[in-house]
Amino acid sequence: MTKKILLLGAGRSATVLISYLLEHAAAAGWELTIGDVEVQHLQPVLAAKAFAKAIVIDVQEPTQRAAEVENADVVISLLPAAFHEVVARECLQQGKHLLTASYMSPAIQSLHEEALQKDILILMEAGLDPGIDHMSAMAALHQIRAKGGELLSFKSFTGGLVAPESDNNPWHYKFTWNPRNVVLAGQGTARYIEAGTYKYIPYHQLFTRTEKVEVAGYGVFEGYANRDSLSYRKLYGLQHIPTMLRGTLRKEGFCEAWNTFVQLGMTDDTYLLDSTINLTKCSFLESFLPPAAVPGLPVQQRVASYLQLPQEHEVLQKLAWLGLFSEEPLQVQNATPAQVLEKLLKEKWSLSPGDKDMIVMQHQFVYELAGEQHELVSWLVVQGEDEVQTAMAKTVGLPVGILAKLLLQGKITKRGVAIPTDKELYKPVLQELQEFGVKFSEKEQVK
Amino acid sequence: MTKKILLLGAGRSATVLISYLLEHAAAAGWELTIGDVEVQHLQPVLAAKAFAKAIVIDVQEPTQRAAEVENADVVISLLPAAFHEVVARECLQQGKHLLTASYMSPAIQSLHEEALQKDILILMEAGLDPGIDHMSAMAALHQIRAKGGELLSFKSFTGGLVAPESDNNPWHYKFTWNPRNVVLAGQGTARYIEAGTYKYIPYHQLFTRTEKVEVAGYGVFEGYANRDSLSYRKLYGLQHIPTMLRGTLRKEGFCEAWNTFVQLGMTDDTYLLDSTINLTKCSFLESFLPPAAVPGLPVQQRVASYLQLPQEHEVLQKLAWLGLFSEEPLQVQNATPAQVLEKLLKEKWSLSPGDKDMIVMQHQFVYELAGEQHELVSWLVVQGEDEVQTAMAKTVGLPVGILAKLLLQGKITKRGVAIPTDKELYKPVLQELQEFGVKFSEKEQVK
Repeated sequence: MTKKILLLGAGRSATVLISYLLEHAAAAGWELTIGDVEVQHLQPVLAAKAFAKAIVIDVQEPTQRAAEVENADVVISLLPAAFHEVVARECLQQGKHLLTASYMSPAIQSLHEEALQKDILILMEAGLDPGIDHMSAMAALHQIRAKGGELLSFKSFTGGLVAPESDNNPWHYKFTWNPRNVVLAGQGTARYIEAGTYKYIPYHQLFTRTEKVEVAGYGVFEGYANRDSLSYRKLYGLQHIPTMLRGTLRKEGFCEAWNTFVQLGMTDDTYLLDSTINLTKCSFLESFLPPAAVPGLPVQQRVASYLQLPQEHEVLQKLAWLGLFSEEPLQVQNATPAQVLEKLLKEKWSLSPGDKDMIVMQHQFVYELAGEQHELVSWLVVQGEDEVQTAMAKTVGLPVGILAKLLLQGKITKRGVAIPTDKELYKPVLQELQEFGVKFSEKEQVK
Repeated sequence: MTKKILLLGAGRSATVLISYLLEHAAAAGWELTIGDVEVQHLQPVLAAKAFAKAIVIDVQEPTQRAAEVENADVVISLLPAAFHEVVARECLQQGKHLLTASYMSPAIQSLHEEALQKDILILMEAGLDPGIDHMSAMAALHQIRAKGGELLSFKSFTGGLVAPESDNNPWHYKFTWNPRNVVLAGQGTARYIEAGTYKYIPYHQLFTRTEKVEVAGYGVFEGYANRDSLSYRKLYGLQHIPTMLRGTLRKEGFCEAWNTFVQLGMTDDTYLLDSTINLTKCSFLESFLPPAAVPGLPVQQRVASYLQLPQEHEVLQKLAWLGLFSEEPLQVQNATPAQVLEKLLKEKWSLSPGDKDMIVMQHQFVYELAGEQHELVSWLVVQGEDEVQTAMAKTVGLPVGILAKLLLQGKITKRGVAIPTDKELYKPVLQELQEFGVKFSEKEQVK
């Protein structure tokens, strides 16, 4: 019988996944249905392929949702996370497997028992971060445990960045995924554990509490803590580890400059600005500054003195490069500070045609074995091909695609609601990823 | 016919209001019913008074609520703000006036048309701040306008503080109202307008953006901006004023020290700490610090270096006075940082028997008249009698009591949902308040 895949969500992060699924569908005789609210851009890709079709679908509409899920053997959702619950409940209802690249939520977690009863797998966090980070970490952790090592510290950092050859701005950053999420990143309190002590970093300190992370051949990055490093202790079987931190990577110097926005309050998404009609980049900035001590003082000097920076500090040059000291009109209406900032950054940080992005991941393990402290570092660098076939789309899409294939081949026995920490899941995925150049390097030393 | 008052809420801020109502009830032949979830403490006060009684009431319970409201001519609510809507809807249903000392909410505001139809007054913000601040500001504004003056700037500050004679701690502060509200004060973004420019202050900058406020005979205070200074422009008839700021007063030096808690994240009320069983004051503090650069470095030094303060800075002395560098156990469970901080502060900042509190309010008006700039400052200082008959209870309770009396006497024609900005409301209240020593001083000069 023909196997059928329903992929929901055909946005920017789905490009590589679609290529992968089309290729395997052609070889294995599967049928592929790709659904989203807008699918016109898929027509050229799918035109000559009888085994694949694109459909317009609103997953909130129950009749069509039920019909499409009923017709599938495996459902993949790359839709925004808010839609996963309704899709998961439909899959549960109809006994179909579901794969997503999004974070687990309590709502999805609560479906575990029911998924077991229905004999299906609802696999969350099966993309890059979360996804490949779990799989690669578990592979290393299982090896360390197999030798009898005892984990003392585990830190893990991932960043979606721009490749050195396309890095032509002073921030050393371009948007390679949802800009809104980048602007809001880190809001809330980051929680981790260090040497047995729970640590809490409020948002306004987050970008000052970075760690240096060096990646051979790619220079120095800086990592800031993710909101939740603690819940993964249980999922990784590291309940008693004294130090555990998960973080996000940026190129050196980014966090200090980004911190300006945080300190000024420009990333706030909780209220609408009062008057945006005549807002310019400079007057937007100015609304977060105290009144000028001396009338007529240039805004650049006022920012420097408010944030206690030297007048020629490179942070100010980064702000200047974004045009923040200019009177360019912003042309926004009814916007939060975060929305204005996002608009302003999109003009400057979008990938240009031909630009390549870059994924960097690094795990740092410290463990004790036979009385000695070992330090194991494993890292991954993946570059995109261009602004469409990005490293982000590759590393998010391929693991999901490989897992869908394995499910259809009946090679996965895992059931219930899960993330990919079992060997049965991560081993074949990490292996096949190597064929696509997604391959970890390792370096180990005795301290 | 006998007039009847129902007072809901008999907590700390109701003491002076109850005395006022009892006195007038005795003279005018009113009946007074005081309801709360716990009223035993009222028995000695009400014992010999046939015209007054205390009842246990849960305003969420519809039958009893309906019966008590039906029996009243005027209802006063000093309950927590969350209960006002249900009480207001009951008053509306039964056509009874309602007075509260709490901030207006959109839910209450939405009852305006219905209140007009029922010919009742729902008067919010009729206490101190909000309350006396509006009334005294409107009195001054009406005078300035009557002369033909044009308002350029209006700043208004209020603080609930400790009287100089009871001020025996380095923070120059004690709790004179809900400690939880003091710990959470200022969270969110403060918005105001200065010289025609909208200004936004994120919480983590709020306590660094203070203004000095001097009050003759009482020294120097510092004011930080309230969350909302803008909505009162319309309510005060100051839609086009270039500068308007409402703020909160503390004694000089308080804000810099309080800012330590904000900077460290210790006022966060959005998450539970992970392990509180063995928490000490010092380990609580330490969980917000980065790991020690040098092992064994005292926490006091680490706080200083993290917050870039000199080692002997008085802020550190204030923290030391609170015991934050000590290993005293905290004995808390399942608590947010804000809840732990509140517990710790209550031990040190509670009023002792005989302690007097102090209310300080200052309005600063700048207006233009006949080509000259005038500066008018008006201010109020009220001291409490002891830790029960506080200045806070006096200034919150008396305006509400006076307004209740005026309503029963049929001297108020205002109807609908309102705050006390009309002359009909503020004039008799400000006048009678003087009999209780609640009296503004004024000083005017041409700039």
